[in-house]
Parts: sequence; structure tokens; C-alpha cells
Amino acid sequence: MPKVTKEDLLKKAEKPNQDAMRLHPFYKGKIEISPKCRVKDYDDFAIWYTPGVAAVCNDIHKNPETVFEHTNKSNMVAVVSDGTRVLGLGDIGPEGALPVMEGKGLLFKYLGGVDAFPICLNTKEPDEIIKTVRYLEPVFGGINLEDIEQPKCFYILDKLRETMNIPVWHDDQQGTATVCLAGLVNALKIVGKKMEDIKIVLMGAGAANLRIGMLYMAYGAKPENIIFVDSKGTLHRNREDLKNHAQKWRMCQATNGDNLVGTLEDALVGADVLSAASRPGPDTMKKEWISRMAKDSIVFVTANPIPEIWPWEAKEAGARIVATGRSDFPNQVNNSLGFPGIFRGTLDVRARTITDEMCIAAAEQLASCAEKKGLSEERILPAMTEKEVFIEEAVAVGMKAIEQKVARLEPSRDELRKNAEFLINRAIKETELKMREGVIKPG
Amino acid sequence: MPKVTKEDLLKKAEKPNQDAMRLHPFYKGKIEISPKCRVKDYDDFAIWYTPGVAAVCNDIHKNPETVFEHTNKSNMVAVVSDGTRVLGLGDIGPEGALPVMEGKGLLFKYLGGVDAFPICLNTKEPDEIIKTVRYLEPVFGGINLEDIEQPKCFYILDKLRETMNIPVWHDDQQGTATVCLAGLVNALKIVGKKMEDIKIVLMGAGAANLRIGMLYMAYGAKPENIIFVDSKGTLHRNREDLKNHAQKWRMCQATNGDNLVGTLEDALVGADVLSAASRPGPDTMKKEWISRMAKDSIVFVTANPIPEIWPWEAKEAGARIVATGRSDFPNQVNNSLGFPGIFRGTLDVRARTITDEMCIAAAEQLASCAEKKGLSEERILPAMTEKEVFIEEAVAVGMKAIEQKVARLEPSRDELRKNAEFLINRAIKETELKMREGVIKPG
Repeated sequence: MPKVTKEDLLKKAEKPNQDAMRLHPFYKGKIEISPKCRVKDYDDFAIWYTPGVAAVCNDIHKNPETVFEHTNKSNMVAVVSDGTRVLGLGDIGPEGALPVMEGKGLLFKYLGGVDAFPICLNTKEPDEIIKTVRYLEPVFGGINLEDIEQPKCFYILDKLRETMNIPVWHDDQQGTATVCLAGLVNALKIVGKKMEDIKIVLMGAGAANLRIGMLYMAYGAKPENIIFVDSKGTLHRNREDLKNHAQKWRMCQATNGDNLVGTLEDALVGADVLSAASRPGPDTMKKEWISRMAKDSIVFVTANPIPEIWPWEAKEAGARIVATGRSDFPNQVNNSLGFPGIFRGTLDVRARTITDEMCIAAAEQLASCAEKKGLSEERILPAMTEKEVFIEEAVAVGMKAIEQKVARLEPSRDELRKNAEFLINRAIKETELKMREGVIKPG
Repeated sequence: MPKVTKEDLLKKAEKPNQDAMRLHPFYKGKIEISPKCRVKDYDDFAIWYTPGVAAVCNDIHKNPETVFEHTNKSNMVAVVSDGTRVLGLGDIGPEGALPVMEGKGLLFKYLGGVDAFPICLNTKEPDEIIKTVRYLEPVFGGINLEDIEQPKCFYILDKLRETMNIPVWHDDQQGTATVCLAGLVNALKIVGKKMEDIKIVLMGAGAANLRIGMLYMAYGAKPENIIFVDSKGTLHRNREDLKNHAQKWRMCQATNGDNLVGTLEDALVGADVLSAASRPGPDTMKKEWISRMAKDSIVFVTANPIPEIWPWEAKEAGARIVATGRSDFPNQVNNSLGFPGIFRGTLDVRARTITDEMCIAAAEQLASCAEKKGLSEERILPAMTEKEVFIEEAVAVGMKAIEQKVARLEPSRDELRKNAEFLINRAIKETELKMREGVIKPG
């Protein structure tokens, strides 16, 4: 791994910024509305609009479930944000969040064949956000919450899951956790350790890491072997300052079996895994702390744009496997490996929710896809360029939903695969076509 | 004009219904989300999503107006409905309304190059609808209200216009009124009468006709020469039953100079124009009533699917010009002639609102486009197939917005035309491309 300086890396990071500033105004938007049905001639509008459409409207009125057949609801996801925690930029407002949500729409389509529309809301009130999203339910087959600050993101997610008939997920929680779990599953295979034996330190107790810890536990990690650390130290049973933060408080009670009261450094002694989703580095994490971990330690340092510690320094300190959030280092923990395939599978069985087990099925499938091409310390996850990964992920998620009886449709494994393959290929083909024929200009 | 029976026509109307029931489930939606920017390879996602997108988000945060440059907001319209008055079907709910709103999205794109997304809301409370639409403002450059029952549609429109920074219009009001005015302007040229001299009877006092009457007046029709008729007779100064309906009550006071108390039949005596937006016929309007109108009378009978009276019966009774809402009779008063071009022009100058004067400019342009190809009793309006009509309409609307100082941008007439032409041609090209290459199947 070639060493670079923080300055090198920040400079390198400037290139996409410059391209972004030039190309966003060139295209004025990353997604657009496009016809999905034939328009042979203007007479076809008598089918798609008045008078013909009335028959279809009546059918939905009489048989509500047919809305999934007569409209694009079955493939349409809302990407909902209030702009309070956009990327690492904080509360930059709903307009500031729009380029991210449009970008998410682009990824959803290109990687998963899913139609996703940005819903950036001009309110920060949790109950108003909840109400608004519920009002929008008729149009959508799923809800993807995004870049909403904690702790309200937990409340919003819970309330919406309780009250909506379509799946709701928060990508910063479930999505990130799914991809981290996939990476950890493979890392453990390489170092030959088992989930139920390992000691895990979670650095940072934000929305992502809280969910990551919960998913690790759902997959077999022992609560007593997990220690969360926030800016004030370890989460333990006497962290009275966290009593009003339901999720953190629950972790204070459930994890940290020895009730260790101390710093991150203390927690890392003998730990097998460090899973960090904290502040940008490179000095957020120190080399000497890593060196106190157990043999064959696994270090996920996912802060962007600079990981909590340089990967080579973590290695020098004894870590055997290191993953970051960046595409230019090995082992990128990349959210985009999750949501497109998971929603593809969820929509294709018309699931009512996305369970932890469906996330775990996706993680196992991601891990298995990487394993098929050969695991190594530098390759624990597949890359975004591997189209078949999203297809297999969709199949795994859909099959799990059927097994758990949260699916409204029950296609066969083969039908699921064919459908996912078709829709993902179709999205790529459409994009290529538009570029080739100049509908999308070179830029 | 070949005479047909009610049964013939209803049977004929069955064909689009049957096609609709077959083809809607085939396509599962009429619009979809499609990439608008280049995706040369997966590295481009570093521009469109994290890390590059952060630069653009920051720019919007610091310079809010740049959201129009960095995103698709400048071309994105919300088609908002609560499903309470869908087509002629009444309150069939937001899911039932979705096929219409998706259809509107298709027309917006194909005819006007405008991206329009369906927002079907699961609430009928006017204040909740208002709040929700305001929360959605960050994403959209304009709001098109659709199929919302009266009287709340007036309140919702007014409140949103007061409080939003983007144009809001209700297509059932402004859109319909614009196309009716265009037809009337040309009809008057043919019969050689002047707007300020004519006596007009408005049959029906729903949202559409109230607005139609107001636009006729804004264009020079004398309020005292206008008589509205609802199910209980003429609107006059003593219609105490209408005191709680602000719009109708205002018309009671402003119109009907002779304060005629009577029936539709009474009102029509000596009238030059009948503008009906009432209940489906063919016997809602009687031949003998038409025969009491003035010489060279003009009759708009726009109820769907069957006009208030058969056009040939209206002609036999003495009407010189007859228009209906159907495409299979001459002179279709077709809403689709309005909104695509009007929003095209409105968005292209980034207008803050759509004024009556902009609607009038659009109506004059529509009238002029039809006149250029030759007016006749059977051709007072252009057809939807005439692409240049939408382009010229956009130019007229944009120029009027600039003149009225409601435009944020001030392109030249030539730039406006080029832009509208480019975007409309691009939308058609994209659709054709997708069909030719099998992304959209034949169906």
C-alpha cells in the first residue's frame, strides 16, 4: 500500500470536487422523469390519460392492491431527508441535501434498477416529517431515509415502520450496518475467528455505529463482548448522561459485560475488532492504541474523507485487516453495495418491511460474492462494478422475505434472479443509449 | 359531422378503456426515473455522489439560488392531488388518482419537456395539504394542483401562492380557462363579434367554470354581460344559499348586471356564448334552449365522456360554432394544449408565479397558432400534435413573465424559443429511442 500524506489525499479529493462543481451545472440535475410506456402516436394518450385511464383509476378504487399493477408504485422509492446531517457537512438544509438525494436516485437506478425520487423536506420537526412521509405513501413502494440527524432518526424510523404498509429503512443505519457486517464476516474467515468469540470495540456511537453494533449482535456477537465508545469514553451501566438517549442507554445496559469504565485506549486492550464510524482523521485513532489489540486484529476506520488512522499505520501497529470508506484504498466499506440490491429484492417480493434477517441475508450474500473471487487481507468485499453482486443480493433478500412471510408475492428464486437481472441491465442499457445518442451529452 | 348515438359513442369510448386495462399492467407505470448525467464508468459516481458531491452541497448551502444550477429543481414540477375529484369519477382516493397523475407526468414530458412527478396525498385536510406541499418546496420548481374538489381547491391554491417562492397553479382552473379563452378568441373572430359586446352564459359553477368566467372577464368580457348558472339556477345578488362559498358569492355580486333570477333556459335567451362545464349529456342541454340564443351563437359543451348536447343537435338548433372535450369531434377543448407549454415558459424564466396575464398570453398564442393554419367553424384551436404550438406558447409565457417582472431570468425571445425547442425535441427523441431499442417494449 503506497503511503500518502494527508495533503496528498486532500489534494486528490479535490479532483472530484472540481469535476462536481463543473459538471453539476452542465447537466442541471442527475435524474429526470422519462416515459416508461409506449407512445406510438398521440392517440396513445387516450389510453394513458383521459378517457382510457378512467378504467384503471376505477379498478384501483375498487381493488386497492392493483395500484401495484397499474402504476410505478411497485418500483418507486422515496429518498427522504431533512438535510440535518448531510454527508460530513452537518445541517446544511434540504436544498443543500438535494444533490446527494438526486445522486442516490442515480445509484438506485443504475445499480439496482430502482426508481428513487428525492424528497427533501423543509421541516426539521420529527412528527411533521413522519406525517409528511405517511401522506406520501400512495406514490411509493418503499422509503429510504437519508442524512437525518440522531437521535430523531431513530424515532422517525420506528414510527414510520410501525404505521406504514411499505418498507421503511434508514440507509445510514441499516445500509451501512449491512455492508460492515459483510466485511466483518469475511475478515473473520481470513483470521480464523468466530463471531461469538470476538471482542468488538465500536468507536463512535452515532446512528451508523449503534446499528452496526446491533447487527453484529443479531449475527451472533455476544453483547457482553461489545464495547461502544463515544466522545466521553466507554458506554457502561452508569453513564447517567445518556439516560435520555434511548438507543445509547439501551447499549449502556446491554453491552460491555465487564462494565469497563474508561477511554477508547482502555477498551481496545485485547480487542479483536475495531469498528470505527467517528471523526475524520488521520489522527483520530493512534497507532499505539491499535497495537494493544489482540493478534490478527481487524480494523474498520470508515470516516470520510480521511480515515481515523492511515491504513498503513494501522497495519504497522499490528492490524491484519484494515478497511476504510475510500475507494482508493483496499477494502472499501461502500454503502452503495447495499441499498440498490436490497431494495431490488424487497420490491420484487413486495415486502412489507425490511427485517434484520433480510439485511443479514444481504450481508452473507455480499460476503459470499467476494469469497467466490478469492478472499485476501486486501479483498474482503466485492466492488461496486460487479453487477452480479446486486442481482444475487436481491435474490437473497427476496427469498428471506418470503421465508419470513413478510412478502406479498412469492416468486421463485429463478424468477427473482431473472427479474433483477433484467431491470438492472435495462437501467444500464438506457443510460448507455442516452449517452450514445446524445440525449445525455459528453460533459 | 356524422351523427352517432350515445350507445355508439360509449362503445367507442370502451376501446381506450380496454387498452388501458391491458397496457397499464404491462408497463407497470407510465413514467420512471432516468439518469440525466453522464455515467462514463463507475468512477463518475465519485462526482455525482460522495466525495465530489459535497462541494456542490456546500455551494448551495452558501448560495441558495445555486440549487437551480446544481440540481433538476429548475425543471421539476409536482403534480399534486388528494384524489377527491378525479376526472369525472369523484372522490376515488389518492391511489386511484395516481394513474392520472403519472399520465400527466408523461404529457408534461412529451409535450413540454418538463419533468413532473406525481404527489398523491393521503390526506383530504386543506391545511395539511398546504403544509405538505410547502415542505416539498426544496425539490420542485413549480406546483401543478390537480383533481382536488371545490371549494377547498380555491383555498389551497390561494394559500400556496401566497406562501411559496415557486409558481403554483391548479390545472383544472387556470389550465382549462386558458384553452377555453383561446377557443373563444378565435370563435369570436369567425363570427365577427367582440369580447366586450357579448353576452356569455356559463353553465356549471365548478372550479373550472368559475375560473373560465374570471379569465373571460380579465380579457375584456363585461361582468354585467356574464351569467353563471348552477344546479339551482342563475347566480344573482340574492342567492343567499351561496353566501358561504366565497368564489360563487363573489360572482353573484359581480356578474349578471340585470340580476336575472331564473333557469338556464331563461339565461340563454339572446346569449352569444354558452360555455358549459357541467354534467355529461347528451341531454343535459336541450335543443330548444340553444335555439333561443343570439344569431351566430358559440357553444362550448365540454363535459366528458358525452358532451352536454350532441354537437349536431346544437348546430341544428342554430349554433354556428360548437366545441367539445372529445378528440373525435371537431374543436376539442383540450387541457393538454395548455400546461406543458405554459410551464415550459414559466420554468425557463424561473418565474415566481403564473399570472392571469401569462395565461392570456398563452391563450392568444394558441389562438394565433390555429389562425395561422386557417380558421373555420370546425377549427378554432390547434391540435396536440402540433409541436411548434407548445414552443411558441412557452415563448409567449416567458416573455410576458419578464415583462411583468415576475421572472428571475431574462433570456431573449430567441433564447427562449431555442431552449423550449431543444427540450421538447429531446423528450420526444428519448421516448423514440427507448422504443426503438426495446427499453420500452411494443406492448
